[in-house]
Amino acid sequence: MLPDRIFFNSLADAAAAQTLPRFRSGLNVDNKLAGGFDPVTEGDRAAESAIRQLIGEHYPEHGILGEEHGSSGLDREYVWVIDPIDGTRAFISGVPVWGTLIGLYHNGRAVMGLMDQPFTGERFFADAETAGFAGPGGPRSLKTRDCRRLEDAVLFTTSPRIMQAEAMARYDRLEKRVRLARYGIDCYAYCLLAAGFADLVVESDLKPYDIGALIPIIERAGGVVTTWTGERPEGGGDIVAAATPALHAAALETL
Amino acid sequence: MLPDRIFFNSLADAAAAQTLPRFRSGLNVDNKLAGGFDPVTEGDRAAESAIRQLIGEHYPEHGILGEEHGSSGLDREYVWVIDPIDGTRAFISGVPVWGTLIGLYHNGRAVMGLMDQPFTGERFFADAETAGFAGPGGPRSLKTRDCRRLEDAVLFTTSPRIMQAEAMARYDRLEKRVRLARYGIDCYAYCLLAAGFADLVVESDLKPYDIGALIPIIERAGGVVTTWTGERPEGGGDIVAAATPALHAAALETL
Repeated sequence: MLPDRIFFNSLADAAAAQTLPRFRSGLNVDNKLAGGFDPVTEGDRAAESAIRQLIGEHYPEHGILGEEHGSSGLDREYVWVIDPIDGTRAFISGVPVWGTLIGLYHNGRAVMGLMDQPFTGERFFADAETAGFAGPGGPRSLKTRDCRRLEDAVLFTTSPRIMQAEAMARYDRLEKRVRLARYGIDCYAYCLLAAGFADLVVESDLKPYDIGALIPIIERAGGVVTTWTGERPEGGGDIVAAATPALHAAALETL
Repeated sequence: MLPDRIFFNSLADAAAAQTLPRFRSGLNVDNKLAGGFDPVTEGDRAAESAIRQLIGEHYPEHGILGEEHGSSGLDREYVWVIDPIDGTRAFISGVPVWGTLIGLYHNGRAVMGLMDQPFTGERFFADAETAGFAGPGGPRSLKTRDCRRLEDAVLFTTSPRIMQAEAMARYDRLEKRVRLARYGIDCYAYCLLAAGFADLVVESDLKPYDIGALIPIIERAGGVVTTWTGERPEGGGDIVAAATPALHAAALETL
């Protein structure tokens, strides 16, 4: 049997049991500098281990690409793509816009994905047909906003200042044309796009596990996500997500 | 009788009844451009009206400085300082890091304050003696972190790109020296500082109602908040908040 929403939820629950008690735990980030374990590294590793154990029990024939514990079986038909805590800087600084990302690729194509924010109780999920939200305000289906022009768009990026110079210059051209630009929220931005509250997300130099789980959520909600040159996004790199095909085309042209 | 925590909570509840139903309500931000009411403006006005009505009933002798409905009685002994939705860009784009700010000044000095984030269920409050948090994980008292050096500090600002050129240059000097800089979260940043998850917040060109409610929360938690030139912050302007007096001094020197 293929994985379903219930199985994805069990993975997210297992991860949350490891991440949430360590969020705002009060341990100083300087622990990391001193060579000891810090809450985010501990949470990352423990959550990924918990997810891997469940996958190993139920789908031993699947491959896994994780952030913390490396890769295995990347040539298999199904490969899980996992980032237990995406947005580590948000996690460290107490802002509840980090997320647990769990994606499933079939022959290299992202087919299912989940993003979980356990502090706010928000969960975004997509399978091959639909994308949905569960959390405050009750469950609902996800649908992007009908925004087609850069001039009307709300744009998110983690920070232009972490981009390389050439990427930042291209990003800046785009930022100048949009209605509103906001910084600082990593994976959460793509979920807000899928939910119809943002129109563009532009980021640079992503790993596959930073975007893999989010691809089905964006696509099933009606959005478009590719690299800055219009290629499929499963491999990561420079990524642009848009609420509509027209807006995506305009963003690609400007980038 | 002077206002107490229970009265502040009743003001926050009245505001949340107006703001929360409009958060992520799905109305397009373009409504504002078209000249109609947008959710954030509607929520701002309705929440401030609700707060003003309760204050008028219980403390008709007090003055009020609000963002949306102007000022009255600013020469009174007690003046309320209100921003019903601080972080309108966060509100517009669906990110739950905006807040309702309700402060009370006594002879020009901030003596009580509350910040409420109704989507996450977080409430930060301070009176003349203590500062406390209520929300996920249960109630606790607020205490800043013992961070004394810029090199160890987590710094927040809304965005360096909204500062004037000279302020941005001074801010940039500071950003280069800290351990981690994050953007984009307005009033929520000061509350995270009070809770011990961030060490510095630096912003430029604030109004009194952007900071008034936060001053007691920061100070009762052990932090220091002034203008960039070391003056009292009640009047707004360029503001710096720090977890400790030593860190505050180092930040002022660099700014």
